[in-house]
Amino acid sequence: MTRDVALIVGGGPGISASCARLFSRNGMHVGIAARSPDKPVLQDLEKTHGARRYACDASEPEAVALLFQSVVRDLGAPRLVVHNIDGRVPGIFRKGIAEADPGMAFATLRNSAFSAFLVGQQAARLMRENTPGAKGTKGTIIFTNASAALKGFPASGAFAMACQAKSGLAQSMARELMPQGIHVANVPIDAAIGWTQEDGTRAHRLAGTTIDDNMADPDYIAETYLQLHRQHRSTWAFEVVLRPWVEKW
Amino acid sequence: MTRDVALIVGGGPGISASCARLFSRNGMHVGIAARSPDKPVLQDLEKTHGARRYACDASEPEAVALLFQSVVRDLGAPRLVVHNIDGRVPGIFRKGIAEADPGMAFATLRNSAFSAFLVGQQAARLMRENTPGAKGTKGTIIFTNASAALKGFPASGAFAMACQAKSGLAQSMARELMPQGIHVANVPIDAAIGWTQEDGTRAHRLAGTTIDDNMADPDYIAETYLQLHRQHRSTWAFEVVLRPWVEKW
Amino acid sequence: MTRDVALIVGGGPGISASCARLFSRNGMHVGIAARSPDKPVLQDLEKTHGARRYACDASEPEAVALLFQSVVRDLGAPRLVVHNIDGRVPGIFRKGIAEADPGMAFATLRNSAFSAFLVGQQAARLMRENTPGAKGTKGTIIFTNASAALKGFPASGAFAMACQAKSGLAQSMARELMPQGIHVANVPIDAAIGWTQEDGTRAHRLAGTTIDDNMADPDYIAETYLQLHRQHRSTWAFEVVLRPWVEKW
Amino acid sequence: MTRDVALIVGGGPGISASCARLFSRNGMHVGIAARSPDKPVLQDLEKTHGARRYACDASEPEAVALLFQSVVRDLGAPRLVVHNIDGRVPGIFRKGIAEADPGMAFATLRNSAFSAFLVGQQAARLMRENTPGAKGTKGTIIFTNASAALKGFPASGAFAMACQAKSGLAQSMARELMPQGIHVANVPIDAAIGWTQEDGTRAHRLAGTTIDDNMADPDYIAETYLQLHRQHRSTWAFEVVLRPWVEKW
Repeated sequence: MTRDVALIVGGGPGISASCARLFSRNGMHVGIAARSPDKPVLQDLEKTHGARRYACDASEPEAVALLFQSVVRDLGAPRLVVHNIDGRVPGIFRKGIAEADPGMAFATLRNSAFSAFLVGQQAARLMRENTPGAKGTKGTIIFTNASAALKGFPASGAFAMACQAKSGLAQSMARELMPQGIHVANVPIDAAIGWTQEDGTRAHRLAGTTIDDNMADPDYIAETYLQLHRQHRSTWAFEVVLRPWVEKW
Repeated sequence: MTRDVALIVGGGPGISASCARLFSRNGMHVGIAARSPDKPVLQDLEKTHGARRYACDASEPEAVALLFQSVVRDLGAPRLVVHNIDGRVPGIFRKGIAEADPGMAFATLRNSAFSAFLVGQQAARLMRENTPGAKGTKGTIIFTNASAALKGFPASGAFAMACQAKSGLAQSMARELMPQGIHVANVPIDAAIGWTQEDGTRAHRLAGTTIDDNMADPDYIAETYLQLHRQHRSTWAFEVVLRPWVEKW
Repeated sequence: MTRDVALIVGGGPGISASCARLFSRNGMHVGIAARSPDKPVLQDLEKTHGARRYACDASEPEAVALLFQSVVRDLGAPRLVVHNIDGRVPGIFRKGIAEADPGMAFATLRNSAFSAFLVGQQAARLMRENTPGAKGTKGTIIFTNASAALKGFPASGAFAMACQAKSGLAQSMARELMPQGIHVANVPIDAAIGWTQEDGTRAHRLAGTTIDDNMADPDYIAETYLQLHRQHRSTWAFEVVLRPWVEKW
Repeated sequence: MTRDVALIVGGGPGISASCARLFSRNGMHVGIAARSPDKPVLQDLEKTHGARRYACDASEPEAVALLFQSVVRDLGAPRLVVHNIDGRVPGIFRKGIAEADPGMAFATLRNSAFSAFLVGQQAARLMRENTPGAKGTKGTIIFTNASAALKGFPASGAFAMACQAKSGLAQSMARELMPQGIHVANVPIDAAIGWTQEDGTRAHRLAGTTIDDNMADPDYIAETYLQLHRQHRSTWAFEVVLRPWVEKW
C-alpha cells in the first residue's frame, strides 16, 4: 500500500512542525517548504520524522511550480496540502492606516494571499488527477488563517486585506473544487498560538496569564487538519474557526 | 474508570441513531429522549447498544427538568448533550409568508428553539459541576442545525426563525460557557440527510440523482460530533457547517 | 394625489415616535399600534402629527389581523410597515443561561419574533395588492433589530434567540417578496438608543460618558427608514446595521 | 460658505459618472481620477458639471500621493472620497483555478485591493485634519465592492481575493477611523450594473430579460453614497449591500 503524501508550505516551530509530526506518525510522506529550509526545527523534523525539506519563496509563480514538480518526483502527488504562511512583515502592526507603510502592505498581500493562490493552483492541478480515496476524496487543501479573516482589526488594514483575500480564495476554490472531489478548507485560528519549547517553557505566553492552554496548541490544530483530511465527502466542513476556551469573541 | 454519559434529545433513525451507536461504541453510556420512545429504531438501539430510552416533550420546561434528573439518576451527569430536534411541523413548507399558518409557525419555534433553550439550560446547570476531563472539558453541548441557520429561504420564514434562533442561543451560550470549561457547538447541516435503511436502500435519496453520497451521511455527522466532544479546550470549534461535496452553496 | 399610509407597530418615545413624526412631516398618514395606546407620548403624536393610535397585542394572531383591517378601513392599505418591538421582558438580562427563567425566555421569543411573523404576514398580504409606486415599490416592511442579531452575547440567550429569529424571518421574507416588488429590510441598531426628553436631558445616557451622540439618535434611525422606503427597486438594501461613531465592534 | 470637495477614484460611465453628476448637483466640487482621464465621458463631466479630471494609476503609491496633493491644491481637502475601481483584468473570468493566469491574479489584487489601501490612506491622512461638519463627520470614505465580497464564486478566485481584501481593509479602517470622526463604508453591489446610454439603450442588459430595472442603476447607487455621506455620526452604516429586486441571493 502506498503512503499518502502531505505537503506543508510555510515552515516554523508552530503549526507546520505539529502537522509534520502528526501526518508522519499517521503514515504519510511529508514534504515541508520554507524560504529557509535549513532552520534547526526543519532539520529536526527531517531527522525525527523523515520530513523532506524544500526551499521555496511561495510568492513566486515559478518557484511554486518547481516545488510541486520536485515533490511529485521525490514523494509522489500530494493528497494533502497545507498553506501555512502568515505573511506579516515585521513592523506592520500597531500602525494606523495613515502611518502604515505601503511597501509593507504590498509585501504582506503578496506573501500571504498571492502565495495561497499559487499553492492552491498547483495543488488543484495535481489533485484532480488523483483517484478518489476510501472516503471519496481526491485531495485536501487547507488554508491556515487568522482572526482578521473574520473581522478586520483597527490599525492593521494590510493584514486584514491579506487574511480576507485568503478567505475569498478559499471560498471560490471550495465551491469550484468540492464537486470535483477536492476538499478545500479555511481555518482561521482566533487566538495567539503557543507551543512547548525545547526548554519546557511555553512559547508566546500572553503577559499576565497563568494558564497554559489560553493559547491555541498547534498539536491540536494539526489534529483538526487531519480530521478534515479524513472527512467523508458526504460531510465536508469548509470553514472551522478554532479558539481557546478563554478567548473573548 | 467511569464511563462518560451522553444524552441525545430527539430520537429518529438519522443523526440520533448514528450518534447513539457511535457514542456507545466509544465507551459512553447513552440516553436518548424522544416524544415517542417506543418507536422501533429506539428499541433497537436499546437492544444493540444499551441506549436508555426516555419519553420527553422537550418543549415543556418541567419535562426537560425531569428528563435530566432521570438521566443523572440512571446513568450519571452527562458530559455530552446533543440537541437534535428539527421542530418542523408537517405542512409548514412551500407556503409563502402570506399563506403560512401562524399556529404552525409558533409550534415550530417552540419545538425547535425553545426546546434548545430548555435542554441547553439543564445541560449547563449540570456540566458546570463536572470536573474537567483529560482535555480540560467539563462537558460538550451540540446543537444540530440546518441550512436555514445560514440564510433564510423563501417561503419558509417559520423554519428560518427557528434555526436562526437556535444559532443565536448557541452563540450566547458558547460565549458564556466556554470560559467555564463547557464546549458549545452549533452544527448546521447544509444538505438533505440520507442513511442506509434496513432494506439496503438509501433514505431521502434526491429525485434524479444517481450517487449515494450526495446527502450528508449521519454516521459521519456523528463522527464530527465525537471529534468536537474530544477537542482540547485550547482549540475549540464553535460552528461547523457540514455539506456534501456536490452541494450548491 | 393620495397620501401613503405608514403603520408603526410598537409605540414608545424612541424610534416609533421619531418615525411617526418624520413620516407625517413627509406627507404620510401614520398609524401607530401599541399594547397601551393611551400613553402620553402617543397621545401627543396624535395631537401634533395626526397619528392614529391602535391598541394591539402584536403576539396575538387575531389581534394583528384586526389591526390591519382597522388600518385599511381608517387610513387605507399601508405602503410602509415598521415592526419596532424589542420584546424583552423586564428581568431577562444579566442572567446566565443556568439561571434564566424559561417563562421569560418564551415570552421574549413570542413578543419579538412571533409578532414579527404576524405583522410581516399581514403586511405581505396587503402589499402584494398595491400598485407599484414611482420607484417600482409596492411596499416596504422594516424590522428594527438589535446587536444580538449580529452575535449572541453571554448571559442573554433568550434575547439572542429572538433577535436572530427576526433576522431569519426577514431574510426569508426578503428573498420571497422582493421579486414581487415588496422591499423587506432588517435594521440592527448596534447601540444604546438615546433621545432628547421633554426636560432637555438625554434619555439612556451611558454612565461615564460626556458626549451626546454616543447613542443612536432615533430621529436619524427614522431618516434611514424613510430612505429605505424610497429606494429605487433596482438598488434595494436588505440589511443596514446602524451604530454610533464611538461604538466598539 | 465653502463647498465640500468630493474625489472619485476610478472613472467610467457607470457609478463614477453618476456620482460626479449627483455630488455636483448637490453643491460639491468634484474631482475624478482615472488612468485615462481624456475619455469622452470624463470630458463631458467636466463640461456639464465642472468635474476636474486627474490622471492617476491608483496602484502606484507616489501617483496616489500626488493625486491627493493636486486635489487639495486645486479644490481643497476632500470630505468625500469614493474608491470605485473594480480591478478586473480582461480575461480573468470563467477560468478555473487550475487554468487561471497568476499574472492576471496578481494584477487584479494590485489594481483593486492595493489601490484601495493607497487611496484610503491618503484620504485618512487629510480627513483627520478636517473640522467636523454639521452632523459631526470629518469625512466619508466609500469603497465600491462586488458580490464576490460576500462569497467567492467558483472559477473566479482572483476576483474573490481582491473583493474580500477590500472588505477587510474597509472593516479595519472603519473600526479605527470612525471613533476619529471619519465615516468608512463598504458597498458591495450584488448585481450587474446598468445605465442608460446616449442612444437611449440600456448598457449591460442581461440576455433574455425584458425589464429595465433588473440591474443596479448607478444613479441610485450614487444616491445611497450621498446618503451615507450625510448620515449623522450617531447612526453610521458601515456596510450596505445593494441588489435589484429580482436578483437571486
